[in-house]
Amino acid sequence: MAPLTAPKSGDALFASVDRVNAELFTLTYGAIVRQLLTDLEEVEEVNKQLDQMGYNIGTRLVDEFLAKSNVSRCVDFKETADVIAKLGFKMFLGVTATVTNWDAEGTSCSFVLEDNPLVDFVELPDTCQGLHYCNVLSGVIRGALEMVSMKTEVTWVRDMLRGDDAYEMRVKLIKQVPEEYPYKDDD
Amino acid sequence: MAPLTAPKSGDALFASVDRVNAELFTLTYGAIVRQLLTDLEEVEEVNKQLDQMGYNIGTRLVDEFLAKSNVSRCVDFKETADVIAKLGFKMFLGVTATVTNWDAEGTSCSFVLEDNPLVDFVELPDTCQGLHYCNVLSGVIRGALEMVSMKTEVTWVRDMLRGDDAYEMRVKLIKQVPEEYPYKDDD
Repeated sequence: MAPLTAPKSGDALFASVDRVNAELFTLTYGAIVRQLLTDLEEVEEVNKQLDQMGYNIGTRLVDEFLAKSNVSRCVDFKETADVIAKLGFKMFLGVTATVTNWDAEGTSCSFVLEDNPLVDFVELPDTCQGLHYCNVLSGVIRGALEMVSMKTEVTWVRDMLRGDDAYEMRVKLIKQVPEEYPYKDDD
Repeated sequence: MAPLTAPKSGDALFASVDRVNAELFTLTYGAIVRQLLTDLEEVEEVNKQLDQMGYNIGTRLVDEFLAKSNVSRCVDFKETADVIAKLGFKMFLGVTATVTNWDAEGTSCSFVLEDNPLVDFVELPDTCQGLHYCNVLSGVIRGALEMVSMKTEVTWVRDMLRGDDAYEMRVKLIKQVPEEYPYKDDD
């Protein structure tokens, strides 16, 4: 049953949730990345682990998002992308993303972030050039979308830590699984 | 030179900093702990790593704290403990701690937390009974205090994840290093 209240604005939504200091979060995330680099050695493996961590987190965050945002079912991938960019990013990171670069089919778009709390104070040493430092974020998007029946691929195409002028992740809808009613007894 | 403005209240301080969603932080921290448990196997090693991570984070956070809180030099360990409990915890975690159980010498006290954003949704499996899940916090305190010339030992004496009725960490001042003027050229 769709909720009868209107979706909250991003600002109202962000104000309504419990929060912690962004610098504490940034440093904590940095500690994970450093730990993984020490433990796994291969940058590619670190990228995979960060993505998997993000995926796991995304599958959990989507519940809080749906519970607090008053967003009801999105009609299509385009609307979903807008909701993530304007409300999802705001609710969790306190920033908003821009949705852009749609393909003709409406199944691929980019999220562009100009402000990214994950990377404050971060500089990558030369040995980490292949690292996708923010891979947890693309994992979160992938995990959250999968919980609302959208299988996606999410990849970074611009990264300020690699010298680009913004953070841009490309989200490609691979498959939309038709939603079934939950709690169906006779499967 | 001591700043001329009065110290901010905990609430004003918390409102003045950038923040992110507490659930995102909690899940991110949980992902670290899980990763360390997988990589290190020994619970004691995980405790040590979390403490070390916290220490590193604490040595960084103290700068933001001093820059934003308008707190000037504390006269003694007692005042320092009060500032951490009322302003430090609030600024970073959005909660306050109670300072209690002072010893006669005024060199040991407890921080008691009734609300602890780190542990939302956390349950420890039986295999993790020796884990100090919140060891990052005690590490932060130790690291931050060391940056203001107080060498401390910080240990957990109560832990709700272990069935206690609150979180209590014991902070013992080991040594107070007399502060030297920074940037002394003739060492």
